[in-house]
This record gives sequence, structure tokens and C-alpha cells, in this order.
Amino acid sequence: MNNYDLLIIGSGPAGLSAAIYAARAELNFAVIERSAVTGGQVQSTYEVDNYPGIPGVSGPELSEKMHQHCEKLGVRFITEDVVRITHDDGIFTITTSDNNTYTSRAAIAATGASHRKLECPGEAELSGMGVSYCATCDGAFFRKRKCAVVGGGDVAFEDAIYLSKLARIVYLIHRRDAYRAAPTLVTQAKAIENIEFITDTVVRSINGSDMVESLTLSNVKTGETSNLEVDGVFIATGIIPENVLFGKIANCDENGYLIANEDCETSCPGLFVAGDLRTKQLRQIITAAADGANAVTSAIRFLG
Amino acid sequence: MNNYDLLIIGSGPAGLSAAIYAARAELNFAVIERSAVTGGQVQSTYEVDNYPGIPGVSGPELSEKMHQHCEKLGVRFITEDVVRITHDDGIFTITTSDNNTYTSRAAIAATGASHRKLECPGEAELSGMGVSYCATCDGAFFRKRKCAVVGGGDVAFEDAIYLSKLARIVYLIHRRDAYRAAPTLVTQAKAIENIEFITDTVVRSINGSDMVESLTLSNVKTGETSNLEVDGVFIATGIIPENVLFGKIANCDENGYLIANEDCETSCPGLFVAGDLRTKQLRQIITAAADGANAVTSAIRFLG
Repeated sequence: MNNYDLLIIGSGPAGLSAAIYAARAELNFAVIERSAVTGGQVQSTYEVDNYPGIPGVSGPELSEKMHQHCEKLGVRFITEDVVRITHDDGIFTITTSDNNTYTSRAAIAATGASHRKLECPGEAELSGMGVSYCATCDGAFFRKRKCAVVGGGDVAFEDAIYLSKLARIVYLIHRRDAYRAAPTLVTQAKAIENIEFITDTVVRSINGSDMVESLTLSNVKTGETSNLEVDGVFIATGIIPENVLFGKIANCDENGYLIANEDCETSCPGLFVAGDLRTKQLRQIITAAADGANAVTSAIRFLG
Repeated sequence: MNNYDLLIIGSGPAGLSAAIYAARAELNFAVIERSAVTGGQVQSTYEVDNYPGIPGVSGPELSEKMHQHCEKLGVRFITEDVVRITHDDGIFTITTSDNNTYTSRAAIAATGASHRKLECPGEAELSGMGVSYCATCDGAFFRKRKCAVVGGGDVAFEDAIYLSKLARIVYLIHRRDAYRAAPTLVTQAKAIENIEFITDTVVRSINGSDMVESLTLSNVKTGETSNLEVDGVFIATGIIPENVLFGKIANCDENGYLIANEDCETSCPGLFVAGDLRTKQLRQIITAAADGANAVTSAIRFLG
């Protein structure tokens, strides 16, 4: 009963899309998700306006639509926490914290990634209410307003440059005075008038009642505290790929993403990776959903 | 007034998704589409059940949802037929049959592909009513029913194998007795019980009042005519990439697809390709839409 052709681990847009494609191909498969709700990071997104065909939808609502799509196709969901995956003699053995064991010939890693948090007061409370972790996703909501970006790497600079075209002013806040970002990005950002650089500074708290209103900043060299009025803050301090289960059976890049091209094939035969956990240029709901379709197509070819 | 940062040519799911991403990034751009309706091949699809989040939607309805999404974001559509694109000194010059000229620094080729037709009676009339050009898209509608696949290449065999798991019986009809398909696919298909091979045979007509009911077949060697009862027919005789406009400015593969990885970058600097026209393993609405997002991201990086 616990033996499948395919097991999908994770139920964000990548996992749900994979489930839709696997169901329509009538594979013997199941989705394993530790959370009682599906949707992954989308669940905690306030508004999604870039999933083509469903404008201005809340994250939970979009997740629910995808989940209902799966339900309509009879997808089996197993709500358990996967603690271990091994791969021997061509069989994946998946053990959950309930001490159940599931086996399959193919598996799709769709556990995604999570954004590194600032861990300061107000961050969790105002998440989706001005606190964002994705400029491409949420930048358009801050048109002609005041934004901050926190971070000093490539993503922070890309976000600041992207937002500079939309927002009135962008403050790029970094805890040091040197940047990890590529020098070309730094040069490009420094030439943009409405980007203001705040260095040696950390965010102590994000303030606001219903929406973000200001940041409390602290200069790490002088210890001085100040208040910065902003309508939004983009936290770009890093992404943590959820690779714990798969890092031992397939190759990851230096940042921990499972290495695969758009066909989603990892270095482990039969293991496919879909969504944010995969090496790719753009982590979006629509690109995760496309991965789900590609991963199932590759899995069907693998299963033969 | 006719100078843009970005021009998107074509308005199927790839072009519309690109427009959504470009609008949210506030690029100075427009979409050029010769047809009065957007949606591309989706327009002529009877039912789409694999676009995650929107189950069981008609093709025209899904197209309309994506179009409305664009309208909401203020996308400018130019309804003209592009007849020529040149690229000189970093500028694309696009001429339409109305003799208008548009220029841009970046362009997205999203003109897609079309399926080669049998050009027999009943094909157009019953398209979407049992006549399909995509097994991955429509196979699930023919569960436990009788299907035919027409063709002798890789796609025809992949379709037959895919459908054999869903349909009661799959007839693979080919006009010759030798196959172009990879020998491994032929071997695999021949081992499947419910695939029946009909060779040296062409389809003279597709018959049915509301839905496909039968095919009139003709043996090209004996001239004998016969009738084959089927509920659906999948035409897999080839795909024609709509590359006419771009073939001279960017590299195509041997089948005429514009060569690009998932970042959608072609060999021509500033030209990006999204959707079915691109070299890729899986041509679906969801993968085309993902391309739109990736192409705009690459275009933004290119525009600097």
C-alpha cells in the first residue's frame, strides 16, 4: 500500500503543479507535506498579482485554488513530516516522523526555500503588510512610495535597482560598509538618483499598526539610533534552500540549491527537483508551477 | 511615440505573461499581435485542465482571463501584423503590414508554433471535439476510451505510450511501414499490449456529428478503404515553429526552434524567446507562461 511509482515531497506551487500533471497521467503517486495546509511560501503572501490569469489574489486563496484543482483530480495527500530519504537499488525509501515508510521508484523534491529573516520586532507581525521578501513579486505595490531594502548581496542590489524604477526613493540598508554584491551591480545602483545608501546600519525594529510606517535603525559603529519613515521594507539577506532531505543523495551548488536544468533532473537517477529548491534564475510561482510539469514529464520518461 | 524599451511579438500565454511581468516592472513596452484576439493556440483549445489553479476552463476563457489581467495592468496592445524585424546598432526595427514602424532596444519573440494539420475533412470541424494535437494536454479526457494517434516520429510514439496508460486502446496510424521515431521508443511501444499498429495508412476523413466517432482510413499500398471507430484522434505529424520573423537574426535548431535556455536568451543580443518557439522539452501553457517571466527578467538585466 505504501509503494508508489512517484512521491512528491512538498506542496507549494511546484508540488501541486506536479501533482496535477501526475494525476492527469494516472501515475501511482502521492504528495507528502508536513503542513496541514498546502501552498508553501504562497500561504504567507498577502497578495499575488503576477500569476497570469488570476490577478490580485491573496496567497492563501491562490493556494486553495491549486489545492482544489488537485482534489478534483483525486490527488492523495499524506500529511506527515519526512525525516529521511534514502536511495538504494533504484528505490527511494521515505521515512516520516510518524515512523511510517513509503517507497517509490521516482521522487520529486519540492520542499522549496525560505527567506532568511531579520528576526526583529515587527517583522513577522507586518509580513505581507509592507514587509516583503520578493521585490519582483511585491514591488508594484509600492509605486511612488518610500521603500527600504535590507542586505548587501546581489539580490539586495537587484531589488534596489528594480524598485528604483517604481518607488519614489529606495534606501539600501546594509550592516557593513562593503558589499558582497557584484561590482557592476554596485556601480549601476550608485548611478541611480533615487537610491540612497545607508551603511554600517542594522534594523532594530519594523514599526506600524496595520501597515509598515517606519524602521528603527541602529548604526553599528556609533551605536546611534534613528527612525526612517518607509511604506515598505524588502528583506534580501539571503535564501535558505530546504535541502536537508536531499543534500546527501544529489548534488547541490555552493548555495545549497539542488543542481538541475529546466528538465529538473538531479544527479541522482529518478530524483527530480521542482520549484525554489532548484538552481534557476527566477524563483516565482509561475516558474515553480512550470517546474512541476517538467519534473513529471521527466519522471514519466524515467519510469519508462 | 513608436520607440520602446521592449516589444513583445505574439500574445499567447508566453506573450501575455511577459506583458504582466513587464507592466509590473513599469517598462516602456507594448505587445504586437496580428490577431484581434489574444491567446494563441489556447484560443482554439476546447478545455484546459492542467493550468494549476484554474481547473476545467475553456481555452477562450483562459485566454480572456490572461488578457484581462494585462488590461488591468494597462498593457498596450498593437493589433498589427509584423512583416519584418531587423536589428542594427542595438535597435530592433519592427515593420507591420500597416506600414508602421516600431523600434525597441529589446524584443521578446513569442509567436509560438502551430501543429501540422492532416488537412482532411472533419479535422477543423471536430478540433477540440475529439481532434487534439497534444496528448499531455488532452489525454486525460479519453480515459478508458478508444484513441488513434497519427504520425511516425518521436512525438507520435511518446503520445501513444502516454495514452496507452489512459485509453482502452490506442491505434498508431502511420502512412509508411518504417518509423522515424527513436528505436527505443518503437521497442517500448511494441511491448505495450493496448497499442495497435496500423501502417501504410492515411486518414481520409475524421467523422462525427458533435464529437469524433470514427476515421475513414485508406491503405496507400492496396488502396483499400476502411472505417475505424475511435473517440479521439491525436495528430502528431509535426510542429511548425513560427520562426519566419526571427530566423534571420537569431540561431534556430534543426527543427526551426529558436535556440535558448530557460533564461530565454537567443544568439541575438537583446532578443529573447518565450513559449513554444523556444527549444525546450515540454510545450505547455504553464511552461510558456514561465518563459514570459524569465524572458522579461533577462530583458530587464539586458536593458540595465
